[in-house]
Amino acid sequence: MPIYHAPIDDMRFILNDVFNASEFWQQVPALEHVDSDTVDMILEAMAKFATTTLLPLNRTGDEEGAQYLGDGKVKTPAGFAEAFHEYAEGGWIGLGGDMEYGGQGMPKMVTMLAEEMVFTTNQSFALYPNLSGGAAMCLLNAGSDEQKQTYLEKIYSGEWSGTMCLTEPHAGTDLGIIKTRAVPNDDGSYALTGTKIFITAGEHDLTQNIIHLVLAKTPNAPAGSKGISLFIVPKFLVNADSSLGERNSLACGSIEHKMGIKASATCVMNFDGAKGWMIGEENTGLASMFIMMNYERLTMGLQGIGGTELAYQNAALYANDRVQGRADHGTQDPNKPSDIPVNYADPIVHHADVRRMLLNAKAVSEASRCFAMYVAKQLDIYKFSPDKAAKKAAADRVALLTPVSKAFLTDRALEATIDCQQVFGGHGYIREWGMEQIVRDTRISQIYEGTNGIQSLDLLGRKVAKNGGAFVETYLAEMRDFAQTMQANHAVKQAILTSADTLADLTQNVLEQIQHKPDAINGCAVDYLAAFGYVSFAYMFGLMVEAAHGKAGEFYANKAKLADYFVARMLPRLQGHVAMVKAGTDPIMAFDNGYFAQEA
Amino acid sequence: MPIYHAPIDDMRFILNDVFNASEFWQQVPALEHVDSDTVDMILEAMAKFATTTLLPLNRTGDEEGAQYLGDGKVKTPAGFAEAFHEYAEGGWIGLGGDMEYGGQGMPKMVTMLAEEMVFTTNQSFALYPNLSGGAAMCLLNAGSDEQKQTYLEKIYSGEWSGTMCLTEPHAGTDLGIIKTRAVPNDDGSYALTGTKIFITAGEHDLTQNIIHLVLAKTPNAPAGSKGISLFIVPKFLVNADSSLGERNSLACGSIEHKMGIKASATCVMNFDGAKGWMIGEENTGLASMFIMMNYERLTMGLQGIGGTELAYQNAALYANDRVQGRADHGTQDPNKPSDIPVNYADPIVHHADVRRMLLNAKAVSEASRCFAMYVAKQLDIYKFSPDKAAKKAAADRVALLTPVSKAFLTDRALEATIDCQQVFGGHGYIREWGMEQIVRDTRISQIYEGTNGIQSLDLLGRKVAKNGGAFVETYLAEMRDFAQTMQANHAVKQAILTSADTLADLTQNVLEQIQHKPDAINGCAVDYLAAFGYVSFAYMFGLMVEAAHGKAGEFYANKAKLADYFVARMLPRLQGHVAMVKAGTDPIMAFDNGYFAQEA
Repeated sequence: MPIYHAPIDDMRFILNDVFNASEFWQQVPALEHVDSDTVDMILEAMAKFATTTLLPLNRTGDEEGAQYLGDGKVKTPAGFAEAFHEYAEGGWIGLGGDMEYGGQGMPKMVTMLAEEMVFTTNQSFALYPNLSGGAAMCLLNAGSDEQKQTYLEKIYSGEWSGTMCLTEPHAGTDLGIIKTRAVPNDDGSYALTGTKIFITAGEHDLTQNIIHLVLAKTPNAPAGSKGISLFIVPKFLVNADSSLGERNSLACGSIEHKMGIKASATCVMNFDGAKGWMIGEENTGLASMFIMMNYERLTMGLQGIGGTELAYQNAALYANDRVQGRADHGTQDPNKPSDIPVNYADPIVHHADVRRMLLNAKAVSEASRCFAMYVAKQLDIYKFSPDKAAKKAAADRVALLTPVSKAFLTDRALEATIDCQQVFGGHGYIREWGMEQIVRDTRISQIYEGTNGIQSLDLLGRKVAKNGGAFVETYLAEMRDFAQTMQANHAVKQAILTSADTLADLTQNVLEQIQHKPDAINGCAVDYLAAFGYVSFAYMFGLMVEAAHGKAGEFYANKAKLADYFVARMLPRLQGHVAMVKAGTDPIMAFDNGYFAQEA
Repeated sequence: MPIYHAPIDDMRFILNDVFNASEFWQQVPALEHVDSDTVDMILEAMAKFATTTLLPLNRTGDEEGAQYLGDGKVKTPAGFAEAFHEYAEGGWIGLGGDMEYGGQGMPKMVTMLAEEMVFTTNQSFALYPNLSGGAAMCLLNAGSDEQKQTYLEKIYSGEWSGTMCLTEPHAGTDLGIIKTRAVPNDDGSYALTGTKIFITAGEHDLTQNIIHLVLAKTPNAPAGSKGISLFIVPKFLVNADSSLGERNSLACGSIEHKMGIKASATCVMNFDGAKGWMIGEENTGLASMFIMMNYERLTMGLQGIGGTELAYQNAALYANDRVQGRADHGTQDPNKPSDIPVNYADPIVHHADVRRMLLNAKAVSEASRCFAMYVAKQLDIYKFSPDKAAKKAAADRVALLTPVSKAFLTDRALEATIDCQQVFGGHGYIREWGMEQIVRDTRISQIYEGTNGIQSLDLLGRKVAKNGGAFVETYLAEMRDFAQTMQANHAVKQAILTSADTLADLTQNVLEQIQHKPDAINGCAVDYLAAFGYVSFAYMFGLMVEAAHGKAGEFYANKAKLADYFVARMLPRLQGHVAMVKAGTDPIMAFDNGYFAQEA
């Protein structure tokens, strides 16, 4: 079974050395309750909980899976309910929640590290409280006072949980064509009818009530995404005294059998005239989810970090234990064990190709965590800063980087988990080692919360093309300013400057393509996002190198070495993505539609 | 459940238009029994068998899995035994087998297409006859006449099956340290004792007898890989009249639970003084397997093609069916279905990013099949040609390209299956759609038969560095000669010439690195192989473009378009791999060993 040691030193390095968290918290009145000692306690408490409670449930949860018992009932794997209650009692669900409703008001810079640990040790488990957190954030931003009073405290406390009901069988990416209807009742509530699929935690045995946030169309709503409203639809109606009333007319019809995250219940939810209450104004359902979405998409990036971190730690352990072949740079252990009669071998960590795989994962893990923290700080500035200009700048930066933090981090994570699985050779393919589960679990992060293709379209379409590249320019200016003033003498400085020029040039190239080719955004988006991601990682390694600069000890020296590795052995991939974007969309669109149908 | 239409037109194009198979067969006396009509019948018969018998067992086999019943017994999933018998009765096991022993003597150029179809429709099933074929080839090349008489016909007919027992718990890549002992008995046989793991088809319910080919060390054998001998160890001893005698003292101890190929029994085999007979000379066990290995490694490439082809066909079908969003180049279907009240959407095949994923897979499938056929032709020249110089040249080319045909084809295949899974969005993650199974099954092809890292070391170490790049030079010379004489006016011509120069330059660069850095081969190998693969794919697209040149019809025009896509949107990745190789191994080896242990 995989081991885990929470990388708290690395986390503190990012939080304190790279992003000067304490200084930031002192500057912002709304965050004056946050200090380093509290945060250290939070990190250590979560490290313990994740390692001792969640990690042991990761394999067993995968083997047992969530089970549909019939009659709308879902059973989570053994131990999940106890772990959820322990998690709730620890106050973790409301860690980032509003203090007025019993949340702990921690900034995303802190909650993201706790979330990473949960995702690292148990991706399936992580989704249950994650959906509660998302629903709560949505209610907090868009709900009425009464709605907040009714639901938030119960969700933060873990007595109730939440879901987001968006997807329908025929409508995933394209929510504009959903069919679920919400018809007004006489009492101000609505009757919701329709089928939602892929509803994470739609039904389970962890909480007394489940609060569904459901997208639906009211009668005569405008066509498409402008005619979508959001509703609170609780499993059990809530009485005025907060006790549970009658069962609402909604039920789980079945759960999906999936490639991974098998302990997470992915539900088909049938609403049959279920009673619901509108959140916010009519036809503003998508907008109500918008703020939450930025957090959720970053959270999927955290899932990627989790998969990468767990895969890395276990591959590194295996590479130190497993002996096979001799090191090219000379025999490391000349003493042969007595039970191997003929000759012996060295730990495979001495083989450069094994190191290459480990370093790929390590670089992804560290750069991803740094990037996520960068985005988290912007989210916190937007949410907590009293400075309007700073808020606006942060909102723009979050808008730009959110799709990257979702797609680039999870794409690199899948690669990293596959590399780490490969370190195990044949054993990586065997279930009991746990490596293949990490690959299977991590794979979903590229698909849900908007596929990585959709993230790329969001980046290139809405965040780059729509403002003529203005957001990118500001970001690149910051990057160049930083590199030019770097104190550390390191190859990453030039790498940042060069790759910033590359991205600026690429952005211009795409903006020109868009003028002439209707399919240019769609055809260039994925490689543009990848290029954007590699340039951003160069920036992150620059930030880490600079933060380590002048500090003594191997820990800091290794930050510079890992940046060397990245610049030499990963960043060059940028060139391929750039060339593919510049090649344009004609080679894609040259085929008749029939080409893709002829063999099927 | 996935659909499959055997791509026989594409296969015939590669076989006939690109590689002029008939002409070749007419020139070689040993292949005069092969003609186009026979081959067409073979392809059509296999297409029917694969589609109607193997494909329906693919999902059910995955769900049921091979099962260990205790007492050394293994049950294959429902339908596998019947399918195996049908396969055997069709003469498929001996399709490439020696005609003297009841094989059909078909060249690899033909058998590879049949194998591809089997792997496409059922990767797990494919392994059962595949191991028989491998064991038979090994016996044919290294066995005594008596051994061939005793075993070959029974294996070709499918009455008995075969295995290759190499790996041990502590020895996979490094076979030099195996512990299995073979002690001579008085009667000329040996008593084998040891444990072998990851033995595909080590035990099952498909055949009356299982013939294990086992690597073991005789007493006082030299240390390492020079002291390994190969033995025939049948499950049931064989009487002089070919009837089955007493049960040998070997047994399956358990089977592995794996990420994929779940219907394939991956066995722990315990040999407890089992009776075995040496194949070939003492201490030449690895050499005896060598010829077979070239075929097996190409076969893993075919597995990759199979995964890619099935994933592509089903993703293309889904992309034509699924409607979501509007095409950027204009509404395709303005008629909204009556059950969608508000608006409608276009099939996602119109979205450039969806096409990009489909084209990645299609390009991989076609270039891989072409490359496999190129290697197969060289294998056939080596095996059947009477011309000694041609034989030698073919052997050298096979040596050079075998690791590429295994590693590059399977690495690209995993990417392609993941791309195709992504086309399905959330549905790609759900088991019932079958896409996630293709990813899980295909993943093993990168690991077994020598991991892709090991293939890369074989390429750069033994096939490039060892002869100072001579094999590469000859290959590149052929490529350049071809490009320079191309009749077709297509971008791929210049792409071949440019990328051949790139690979020549890269080879020199690595040869120089090796002079100074002991870890250079290990640290550069994987990216060198990837670069080699992309250059080879450019050559393959050139061959296909040239073969299609001047021929009328959309089928041939699309070959040129797919080559355009490859040159513009895939080949640029070459630059990244080149830069990463040139960056050398210092950034990898700069870390202390403790770095990789500190967090574990």
